[in-house]
Amino acid sequence: MTVKTDIGFTTRDRIYVRGRDLADEILGKMDFVDMIYFTATGKEPDARTRAMTNAIIVTATDHGLTPSAIAARMTILGAPESLQGAVAAGLLGAGNHFLGTMQNAAAFTRDEIGELSDSDDDAAYAARAQEAVRAFRAARRIVPGLGHPIHVDGDPRTPVLRRIAGENGFDGRHWRFMAAVEAAAREEYGRLLPINAAGAVGATVSDMGLAPIWARAFALIGRSAGLLAHLMEELENPQGQKIWDMILEQDDSAECAGIADPDRADSTGEQK
Amino acid sequence: MTVKTDIGFTTRDRIYVRGRDLADEILGKMDFVDMIYFTATGKEPDARTRAMTNAIIVTATDHGLTPSAIAARMTILGAPESLQGAVAAGLLGAGNHFLGTMQNAAAFTRDEIGELSDSDDDAAYAARAQEAVRAFRAARRIVPGLGHPIHVDGDPRTPVLRRIAGENGFDGRHWRFMAAVEAAAREEYGRLLPINAAGAVGATVSDMGLAPIWARAFALIGRSAGLLAHLMEELENPQGQKIWDMILEQDDSAECAGIADPDRADSTGEQK
Amino acid sequence: MTVKTDIGFTTRDRIYVRGRDLADEILGKMDFVDMIYFTATGKEPDARTRAMTNAIIVTATDHGLTPSAIAARMTILGAPESLQGAVAAGLLGAGNHFLGTMQNAAAFTRDEIGELSDSDDDAAYAARAQEAVRAFRAARRIVPGLGHPIHVDGDPRTPVLRRIAGENGFDGRHWRFMAAVEAAAREEYGRLLPINAAGAVGATVSDMGLAPIWARAFALIGRSAGLLAHLMEELENPQGQKIWDMILEQDDSAECAGIADPDRADSTGEQK
Amino acid sequence: MTVKTDIGFTTRDRIYVRGRDLADEILGKMDFVDMIYFTATGKEPDARTRAMTNAIIVTATDHGLTPSAIAARMTILGAPESLQGAVAAGLLGAGNHFLGTMQNAAAFTRDEIGELSDSDDDAAYAARAQEAVRAFRAARRIVPGLGHPIHVDGDPRTPVLRRIAGENGFDGRHWRFMAAVEAAAREEYGRLLPINAAGAVGATVSDMGLAPIWARAFALIGRSAGLLAHLMEELENPQGQKIWDMILEQDDSAECAGIADPDRADSTGEQK
Repeated sequence: MTVKTDIGFTTRDRIYVRGRDLADEILGKMDFVDMIYFTATGKEPDARTRAMTNAIIVTATDHGLTPSAIAARMTILGAPESLQGAVAAGLLGAGNHFLGTMQNAAAFTRDEIGELSDSDDDAAYAARAQEAVRAFRAARRIVPGLGHPIHVDGDPRTPVLRRIAGENGFDGRHWRFMAAVEAAAREEYGRLLPINAAGAVGATVSDMGLAPIWARAFALIGRSAGLLAHLMEELENPQGQKIWDMILEQDDSAECAGIADPDRADSTGEQK
Repeated sequence: MTVKTDIGFTTRDRIYVRGRDLADEILGKMDFVDMIYFTATGKEPDARTRAMTNAIIVTATDHGLTPSAIAARMTILGAPESLQGAVAAGLLGAGNHFLGTMQNAAAFTRDEIGELSDSDDDAAYAARAQEAVRAFRAARRIVPGLGHPIHVDGDPRTPVLRRIAGENGFDGRHWRFMAAVEAAAREEYGRLLPINAAGAVGATVSDMGLAPIWARAFALIGRSAGLLAHLMEELENPQGQKIWDMILEQDDSAECAGIADPDRADSTGEQK
Repeated sequence: MTVKTDIGFTTRDRIYVRGRDLADEILGKMDFVDMIYFTATGKEPDARTRAMTNAIIVTATDHGLTPSAIAARMTILGAPESLQGAVAAGLLGAGNHFLGTMQNAAAFTRDEIGELSDSDDDAAYAARAQEAVRAFRAARRIVPGLGHPIHVDGDPRTPVLRRIAGENGFDGRHWRFMAAVEAAAREEYGRLLPINAAGAVGATVSDMGLAPIWARAFALIGRSAGLLAHLMEELENPQGQKIWDMILEQDDSAECAGIADPDRADSTGEQK
Repeated sequence: MTVKTDIGFTTRDRIYVRGRDLADEILGKMDFVDMIYFTATGKEPDARTRAMTNAIIVTATDHGLTPSAIAARMTILGAPESLQGAVAAGLLGAGNHFLGTMQNAAAFTRDEIGELSDSDDDAAYAARAQEAVRAFRAARRIVPGLGHPIHVDGDPRTPVLRRIAGENGFDGRHWRFMAAVEAAAREEYGRLLPINAAGAVGATVSDMGLAPIWARAFALIGRSAGLLAHLMEELENPQGQKIWDMILEQDDSAECAGIADPDRADSTGEQK
């Protein structure tokens, strides 16, 4: 029995990734976004794919004090010895409710677009979209990629991502379908449920010809950088203890406010 | 090359742990605390060890809304599909500041007790303790197992753990040394820095003849149960979104309060 | 806005879990399995529940070199500073394919048993079971809790768990349904697909009146202990490097065998 | 009490990162490497920093079947529902032995270079380096950034990283110090312990004027992409089960080879 990976291996003198010599053929020749593709597929992206991918990953990098960032900050508070543990804790929240939605929306566009091709007319797209929206509603399932709790009049990222998709040739049938879904949902629900960033990324990834999992992969790579920014800020200007104290202050069940962790044996800085 | 573990293996008809048949010789015959020892050492604990271990693990199980519990709740908010991910996120905070301190305190008692034996008199313990405290202070290091940010007059768990240690024959030279350290620190710092739960568990684990890592292991096993209690409560009566909204409300840099995650595409329950 | 947990909180003098004083009312009075229930529900288990729970958690504690144990050992190899990180890495594999199946099987028994009550006769159970099996087969879904890749003639844990369930009054309608499902599957597939440990635990948890999530919680608590046993063994008698070398030796794509990690700057023990 | 982050926040119409409008001022204008800096510091990197950072992150992206990649593959085998969990498991191994060494080497160059400035002559560097190497040896500590278990004649990445550092003006006093350390170690140990990739990255990060933690952050961002490549390959062409079977075959303590996980209730594909 043998194990096989096409990704890479190492010899005494060389390190190979996808058959290319890391030192001589990759370092200084590929930037990181090229390397993401090259490691995953063995091919370098063209300029359009590079531009689009940068826009997608940048979209996912940060959104302030998200639950992921809070989890990472809470974790470094207890385990400052493990930066990787705090990043891991933050990424673990990138699931079906947050960030992972990008993959769900990409899968939605691929699964629901059916046989629609570029040559089909708008009526065909509208019909397929209406079917999909009604099926999801009947199943009491939320339509992936639509609606936003804050950006109720529209997600500011969506038009920009679509414009960039258009500039790079990725504003194809999945985008057209997603737009039809937005219109069908307006009809069905009687109000605007705008395409959100997850829907925009999902449609784009599908129009790039990538499997839906790429959307979650891009999100995780981008967010790892955002989490590290939060952790570096946390180490410089700690907020974790304040966040925790604040929660305890608001804790109905606690009789005293702002208490620290009974476990925290070494927080007695007064010893010095 | 072969890989070797003494812990266990499986055949077509049987599952063995430490050489014993799980179905016929373990299930229904060992309780979980016995199994913790048996899996790790191949031996069942005696009654005294069982009683002491239960007290240690119960001590570590929960302390309300700790940073670990908050991290776990933030994680399930984004990734409800992965209960194990939320538990893992919570355990990742059990490091050198929280909970892991139990291991550090155990190592402190073992490393600093030196040659002291049961036959040495109190003066010998006092002298060794004073040396240790002064050395740590000189190195601006915190003495493990001493002091508490809330329980400034004494950690309520410490006397109970020592009593249980005494009842079970584990109130030995490491406990005696730890008590001497508390006295030496009072001398050195001019005020009480009481032995905290980490110090109590650390001294006990050393007097049980277990390596310091056992203290962190007990803490992680106990806390896994506490985190699952928080997660089950979270699923029944969600607090995570409120915690997050509260943090955003307090976020100086945010211009709007109580906003939800821009990533959260499927939080538009209004679709239904 | 306030945050509420019923689990516990701390004051200057006391620590409360579920309204009880940890030091005076819990330590030394509850064992860990009692504490698992008490923390999660505020109630102590009765003797039958305690016995059954011990059997379930012990069942989940360890199975030798599982993927979870391998992941934990690989993790400590790279990050010896973080025991909690290695445990977390191991628990992250307790998902829908391994261990998490216990929850899936519990949910299956609850969702598919329909209106069946103790007073219904075997024919009613057989009919409901046949419907369920056929529905799953038609949907090309695997019936949770049935079949085993190794224990093809029967999972050795199943009869023992059922016996213990019977002794404690938890061999109720969900067990009866699960047995009917096994029979229906034999009919449907033309061969034995024995109730496996996940099915046994799932039926038991449902007959205990607990929600399916408890099955995954028990599995995670038990497995945390098993993983710590592997990690303690790993630190005493390292296998991780051998496992890794072995994989590289079998790596088709590698031109050299048994190589260590190019990242591993400090593995040059020869320096000394 | 307020919580403060300078990283970003969201309003009804806009998303701000470091005070810039994500949609209008960032998307399509910054690539991901720019965004990493901008999110962490509020400043965009110049061309030299961008080029150097790309080289560092690309260096960390992948090294074939490392323990991190194996842990990630083992994790997805048990929990295919959680891609983020498998990435997290892989990152958890990026600690003090693997990848984290980049941070340790960066800290070493900063802490040990002392007062050396560009104007000091080689003799001064040699003297400081000798002192450092002797101090580490006396303390039986390994000198960070030196030596390699495979690349015994030299790490192929080191000269390329130094060349790129030179081209971008980051081949400064920390690099000069690291080279002096290599020479001093050769003297001290009587053989070549070449500067490895961790040492090269560490010296570069210090010559870029960045804190050591940046080295680990770059490593974690890069490796997240490498792990996702392994996971995408795993889903297309699974190796995890084979790796596991191989380990079990080599398991001395197992009496049967190639067994699958007793927990794996739903591996009975034969049901269909």
